[in-house]
Amino acid sequence: MPQKLYFTPGPSQVFYTVPFHLQNALKRDICSISHRSKTFMSLFRETRELISELLNLPGHYEVFFTGSATEIWERILQNLVSQSSHHFVNGSFSNRFYDFAQELKMSPSRSEGKAGFEFIDWSVPPEAELISVTMNETSTGYAFDHARLENLRTGNEDALISADVVSVAPSVAIDFKLVDTAYFSVQKCFGLPAGLGIWIVNDRAIDKANRKIANGESTGSYHSLKSLKKYGDKNQTPETPNVLSIYLLNHVIKDMLKRGIKTIRNETIYKSTLLYDLFEEIPILNPYIKTKENQSKTVCVSEIRSDQDRLLEHLNERGIIIGKGYGPYKDTQIRIANFPTHSKEQIEMLVDTIREFHS
Amino acid sequence: MPQKLYFTPGPSQVFYTVPFHLQNALKRDICSISHRSKTFMSLFRETRELISELLNLPGHYEVFFTGSATEIWERILQNLVSQSSHHFVNGSFSNRFYDFAQELKMSPSRSEGKAGFEFIDWSVPPEAELISVTMNETSTGYAFDHARLENLRTGNEDALISADVVSVAPSVAIDFKLVDTAYFSVQKCFGLPAGLGIWIVNDRAIDKANRKIANGESTGSYHSLKSLKKYGDKNQTPETPNVLSIYLLNHVIKDMLKRGIKTIRNETIYKSTLLYDLFEEIPILNPYIKTKENQSKTVCVSEIRSDQDRLLEHLNERGIIIGKGYGPYKDTQIRIANFPTHSKEQIEMLVDTIREFHS
Repeated sequence: MPQKLYFTPGPSQVFYTVPFHLQNALKRDICSISHRSKTFMSLFRETRELISELLNLPGHYEVFFTGSATEIWERILQNLVSQSSHHFVNGSFSNRFYDFAQELKMSPSRSEGKAGFEFIDWSVPPEAELISVTMNETSTGYAFDHARLENLRTGNEDALISADVVSVAPSVAIDFKLVDTAYFSVQKCFGLPAGLGIWIVNDRAIDKANRKIANGESTGSYHSLKSLKKYGDKNQTPETPNVLSIYLLNHVIKDMLKRGIKTIRNETIYKSTLLYDLFEEIPILNPYIKTKENQSKTVCVSEIRSDQDRLLEHLNERGIIIGKGYGPYKDTQIRIANFPTHSKEQIEMLVDTIREFHS
Repeated sequence: MPQKLYFTPGPSQVFYTVPFHLQNALKRDICSISHRSKTFMSLFRETRELISELLNLPGHYEVFFTGSATEIWERILQNLVSQSSHHFVNGSFSNRFYDFAQELKMSPSRSEGKAGFEFIDWSVPPEAELISVTMNETSTGYAFDHARLENLRTGNEDALISADVVSVAPSVAIDFKLVDTAYFSVQKCFGLPAGLGIWIVNDRAIDKANRKIANGESTGSYHSLKSLKKYGDKNQTPETPNVLSIYLLNHVIKDMLKRGIKTIRNETIYKSTLLYDLFEEIPILNPYIKTKENQSKTVCVSEIRSDQDRLLEHLNERGIIIGKGYGPYKDTQIRIANFPTHSKEQIEMLVDTIREFHS
């Protein structure tokens, strides 16, 4: 069956070198080696270093592996919050993190920026131990204004800051000095099969987890920061991890570094410009996020006034899959992923095909 | 580089059809499809049915997917225990489940059968809400006597019974009617890449989780039984799951069903007999578990009096990898996996190669 081209916001098109690396993984018995072996330990160490290099993490930041970014929401709350977290909500995913805090019987608070619009209230309750921001809300295509991170930092020095970078790292530069913890999953910009979450924490975050433990509070079990760090310091993981996915991530990051992170980020801007120009140009389309600085570069969302089914059908017939709107916007919006694996030529071809549909 | 043959107790040799199914997964864009798509939903539904068929689960048992079996220890405690669980411990893994309960600030109890020896005390504290047994202790090769499950059931009718079937399902028949929850990971007998845990629960287990919620207790967030069931009833998962692994499991189970579960189980017995006969025959080897009914059929463990390094080296030179002892037994034991992917010919060849080393 002919393979299609996926511009869906995750899972998305696999990174173009993944099939090649999968073949090598089989040749090298990556799925059979012990996660306690020297081979795995050096893969683990190198992959953590590659993530730090690609994202330009400060030296006192550590990287851990989980099953998903969803899991990391729970781990952040278990390890970094005793009672109260504050959540800046501008879509379904940022709100779900808030819901998790309630399900864990904590007392979270939230500020809701009407999706697509700037937050009016930037105040944070003094009791908030952690402030959650979503740098790129995959459900609405709302990009959090990076400058705001600095204000939050200076205005709330005692609170930890958590940044959801799920569908934006490494395509847009983020100053990780401004956050204490961040996380992403590999099926978005990294174009890998789903099943691996990457959790970034700094020393302040680890201190907070240790204080919770000192207070006799539980921080979880195998995936507590204490456990992840204990094993991580030995280049190991608490459980048998998704070794294949760590191997693929290792090699995809090497491919990205060869290509150059600057190039990837410049191309991301170029490709997103083509998409937003298209949204402005065609009458049935209209960018959902109006403020330019909040328009996501990696998940480009447009309202569609009519013919959503016919457009998706037109693209599907040509082997192209794009995303529908998320949740309440399912039938009234389209979402187009602009990830590193999507070449300029592919985005240009997509834009032409949508134009052709309209004319 | 030439591929080696892995008899390690997990991760182990991949099931022999896995490379073929990986190729098809790429051809079918399995890593790119949405986990909310009809394609995924039918894969999810069919895979749950295949697991139920292969393991002969009663109708009121449900199957859910997690990141690992290690995760399921935590989920069982979060969802099925408020305060007290009792653990029958005969090795490192059954003891680690007990440790998890302490890390979650519960009040667990345990009975320790000296590893390799039958339990003396079968009593369970009346307050125990859940009884944990490990059907096949991967660290020591101790097989839990199936008949004991029935005694535990009749003697403790109010408690839930949890069975660790990590390195034994589906190679040895288990009567799941006797347990309320069970779990395994796919990198053992199923010969898949690590990164997926399978959680089996019955209606009694789901009722218990609902009672915890009714009492205002937290049962976790995205992977609470309530959440897994809410999404599962729609043939979906709470988070983007390891779709590739679910696809591979689906196809490996179909291959196993074609081959016939009876055949797989008979061959498992035949191959384990060859291994234990070898352990008896060669002076430097000696079965670690003395009582025949407790000798694992799938993880065969032998003491090795001398030359462990030289034996592993001898095998390694011939492209054969077996396991060392676990934890304290690292240098004084060997562990040989006898999983469905290991053919009779391969086990015979392994036995001959070890004999040849000795002579």
